[in-house]
Amino acid sequence: MDAAASYAPTERTVPSRSRERAAYDRETVHSILDAGYLCHLGFVRDGAPVVLPTLYGRVGETLYVHGSTGSRPARLAGGAEPGLPVCLTVTHVDGLVLARSAFHHSMNYRSVVVHGTAYPVTDEAERRTALDALVDHGIPGRSADSRPANAKELAATAVLRLDLVEVSAKVRAGGPNDDPEDLALPYWSGVVPLAPVHGAPVPAADLDPSIAVPEYLSTL
Amino acid sequence: MDAAASYAPTERTVPSRSRERAAYDRETVHSILDAGYLCHLGFVRDGAPVVLPTLYGRVGETLYVHGSTGSRPARLAGGAEPGLPVCLTVTHVDGLVLARSAFHHSMNYRSVVVHGTAYPVTDEAERRTALDALVDHGIPGRSADSRPANAKELAATAVLRLDLVEVSAKVRAGGPNDDPEDLALPYWSGVVPLAPVHGAPVPAADLDPSIAVPEYLSTL
Repeated sequence: MDAAASYAPTERTVPSRSRERAAYDRETVHSILDAGYLCHLGFVRDGAPVVLPTLYGRVGETLYVHGSTGSRPARLAGGAEPGLPVCLTVTHVDGLVLARSAFHHSMNYRSVVVHGTAYPVTDEAERRTALDALVDHGIPGRSADSRPANAKELAATAVLRLDLVEVSAKVRAGGPNDDPEDLALPYWSGVVPLAPVHGAPVPAADLDPSIAVPEYLSTL
Repeated sequence: MDAAASYAPTERTVPSRSRERAAYDRETVHSILDAGYLCHLGFVRDGAPVVLPTLYGRVGETLYVHGSTGSRPARLAGGAEPGLPVCLTVTHVDGLVLARSAFHHSMNYRSVVVHGTAYPVTDEAERRTALDALVDHGIPGRSADSRPANAKELAATAVLRLDLVEVSAKVRAGGPNDDPEDLALPYWSGVVPLAPVHGAPVPAADLDPSIAVPEYLSTL
């Protein structure tokens, strides 16, 4: 793997265990990020950790998160010395792994952990690109089929950027890893697959009934 | 609501925005915690935030997480002065909310954020109770239908406890909140429901074919 195709591992992106599950190639990392829209954003406030669920979008080698200008991460990132150290984590659960032993129970998953510093985005074009990416991450094509933010809404919205530099993915797939001496035990073992499933779209109570469900929702 | 039925709000569990979505009653908090098994655990390492996905279990007013004794949170929590400040967050996504305006796009979700200090559990009976809860959170009834941890496995496993004291839930439900002047815009609006769905159990390649899929998997 050449350097351009992967992120350079660092001391904090090399896991202390299960190193064989770690991956640093951009293709794996991007595919995990692009399969989701919800991240858990960690930051430090008054010396203590805070972890908040929030939406994200990826544009090339940058992730964007947004929030009210009054939200804590926005205020912390946009202070006198801009920049907030963060850890942004995205996790997809693919299955529950049942081993004969309680000890070897596990989960199939794909996760990405990004370490870095989040900075406020002030350039208006970049802010608009970021907000479109945030809407389109969960629903590809949606940003072009909604009213764009107006000046008042833009003024109320903080956008933070986090560049993909110190990044790792972790993937577990496959069946249980039972110890050989446990294989004859009388317990079922295997995997229960798990995936998020979209239900039928529910129109807003005040939606004009002549407006049909858009095509991009049927392909989610 | 009497005090015993809810957690006392603190400065860091009162959100800086959307306060109407916050809840502190134990029933809401427990039901959100009990509907999941994956949390995002945040802690501070060398001054910087770290957020890792991990399994959890609830027993009364205590959450448990576990890991290898060599894992970073276990080593940090079990040092010379035991105790690791953490933030443990659980999030369930219930739907994508599409408004006429990009600005009012949102997500229906239920989340719980727990602030506190995680301590290593050393009592063997409590460790076993915790490990059973971890297995049973994702698959109720499974711990009784697998081989319990032996002495070697227990010695390799760190269990951390986090008491439910400084806790809040946040819930968003319902349709989009469009501005009145946007209601006539020609964009579809409403909610796309989302839920994790279990697939058919896949037996391990080396499973004795006479062992049937257990009843507790068919009711997941």
